[in-house]
Amino acid sequence: MTHTHFQAQNPAFVQAVEDSFAHQGLLSHLGATLVAVEPGAVTIELPFSARITQQHGFVHAGALTSIVDTACGYAALTLMPAGSEVLSIEYKVNFLSPARGTKAVARGQVLKPGRTVTVCRGEVFMVDGSGQQTLCATMLATMMRRRAMTGAAM
Amino acid sequence: MTHTHFQAQNPAFVQAVEDSFAHQGLLSHLGATLVAVEPGAVTIELPFSARITQQHGFVHAGALTSIVDTACGYAALTLMPAGSEVLSIEYKVNFLSPARGTKAVARGQVLKPGRTVTVCRGEVFMVDGSGQQTLCATMLATMMRRRAMTGAAM
Amino acid sequence: MTHTHFQAQNPAFVQAVEDSFAHQGLLSHLGATLVAVEPGAVTIELPFSARITQQHGFVHAGALTSIVDTACGYAALTLMPAGSEVLSIEYKVNFLSPARGTKAVARGQVLKPGRTVTVCRGEVFMVDGSGQQTLCATMLATMMRRRAMTGAAM
Amino acid sequence: MTHTHFQAQNPAFVQAVEDSFAHQGLLSHLGATLVAVEPGAVTIELPFSARITQQHGFVHAGALTSIVDTACGYAALTLMPAGSEVLSIEYKVNFLSPARGTKAVARGQVLKPGRTVTVCRGEVFMVDGSGQQTLCATMLATMMRRRAMTGAAM
Repeated sequence: MTHTHFQAQNPAFVQAVEDSFAHQGLLSHLGATLVAVEPGAVTIELPFSARITQQHGFVHAGALTSIVDTACGYAALTLMPAGSEVLSIEYKVNFLSPARGTKAVARGQVLKPGRTVTVCRGEVFMVDGSGQQTLCATMLATMMRRRAMTGAAM
Repeated sequence: MTHTHFQAQNPAFVQAVEDSFAHQGLLSHLGATLVAVEPGAVTIELPFSARITQQHGFVHAGALTSIVDTACGYAALTLMPAGSEVLSIEYKVNFLSPARGTKAVARGQVLKPGRTVTVCRGEVFMVDGSGQQTLCATMLATMMRRRAMTGAAM
Repeated sequence: MTHTHFQAQNPAFVQAVEDSFAHQGLLSHLGATLVAVEPGAVTIELPFSARITQQHGFVHAGALTSIVDTACGYAALTLMPAGSEVLSIEYKVNFLSPARGTKAVARGQVLKPGRTVTVCRGEVFMVDGSGQQTLCATMLATMMRRRAMTGAAM
Repeated sequence: MTHTHFQAQNPAFVQAVEDSFAHQGLLSHLGATLVAVEPGAVTIELPFSARITQQHGFVHAGALTSIVDTACGYAALTLMPAGSEVLSIEYKVNFLSPARGTKAVARGQVLKPGRTVTVCRGEVFMVDGSGQQTLCATMLATMMRRRAMTGAAM
């Protein structure tokens, strides 16, 4: 994947992502952790467990999608002004190899930032016991900015 | 969504789906249940809980995707010959409304069955306390058949 | 496809679509015509010709995509306020059957209208000499509204 | 985009792509030409003309899609055994910038080759009079191999 060289306009962009990630019920429940937050790029890891399998014992496509969607969304958020929230408008994922290994590593990157709409690309690698990486899934996603609400309703 | 009128060639298609669903670690962990299995169509429900939320307290896109992917995959499986397994090649999901309510109901339907590749459409509705349904997500998915393995490797 | 029952807020929505369609270089060159414009739904036809084939003599996926993208975009435009333009943010298309016949008929429908972003579904049928229709392609598309420019630059 | 290092198993892979391209009615009609064929990667160019515009005078999304779909399909074909044909199962395209310039250059690359299904990524750049390139569209596509037919029917 091409390296991107974006500047964050919100100096607290790392904090913004960490604060939001801390409220992710699904991801914390599955055991995912935020491992890198850079301008335009976010990495999330998910250790293998029985909580995330599909019927053949590999990682479920939905678990891979959950972490790479979140990595893409937060990659978009790093480039947004302070006081923004990010929503997934849509995404597509292709599954390239069976998701076997000790952990999944998802990386989301901004392809094209925009005032309202940001387009991201994501990849999920499975890492096995010897550190070997296999590309298992690739995502193309469209994210939307909205102003953060004080209070809850959308 | 158009009503589909397919014939299952595997007389034990309901059993095939139920047996496979019983091995879904992610889905059972999230609390999802299989509620209907018909030729070419499968319905899965997921009650709201803190296990499936995103940062704003709604259901995470990845949880919605997990159940509708599974519903689409099993919809494809109902039309395959005995001894088949189903894999998600790829899917796209659009998110239409914030996913608020007491449960999510995902329905997957076959659009076009094929010997190797089957195309499905899926929808996820959120149901609130008064039974009101809101369409929250729509999926277009490509599923692939392979012969079931005795033993594990893909 | 579900019947949609939308109200147009722009009383001149048919005119808006027809005026825009008249400036479509690609579509007029391929021989496409606008056959129906309703609130939230637009139909475009494209007769078979050597101008639109792929290597096996069927209609090229790109030609099918061109008409169903345009039908979806204008379906979205019918529900926008006067003075709007529509842009395709992204789309996904699945190809279900080889595109053989005397004409292609593309129908775009709004699934979920929005102030900025509108989600549409599209279908392309091929019609043969005896009037038989075959579903050849299905699209899920995200459209964006912007205010019309007087002058050209985006 | 990552550089791919694939080996073609068909020694006549360039000829296979050129022969097929010569039968592309839509692409020759629009003015597209094949400019590079490598193992796992194909480049197609399309000069700007009134034949390929949308309503604002830019290149139509459908024309961009037509060339990048074809580039992806032929990228997949370069890695298939002799006597293969390639079909687009599905694709998704995101449009990143208005398509203005003197020509469009589409490049398709194989992400993951397979015996039946091959996943490709494509990009379209617009080139202006001074040679400046702008990324306008990105595709993620699923291609399918079938044995070539002698005779026409699919």
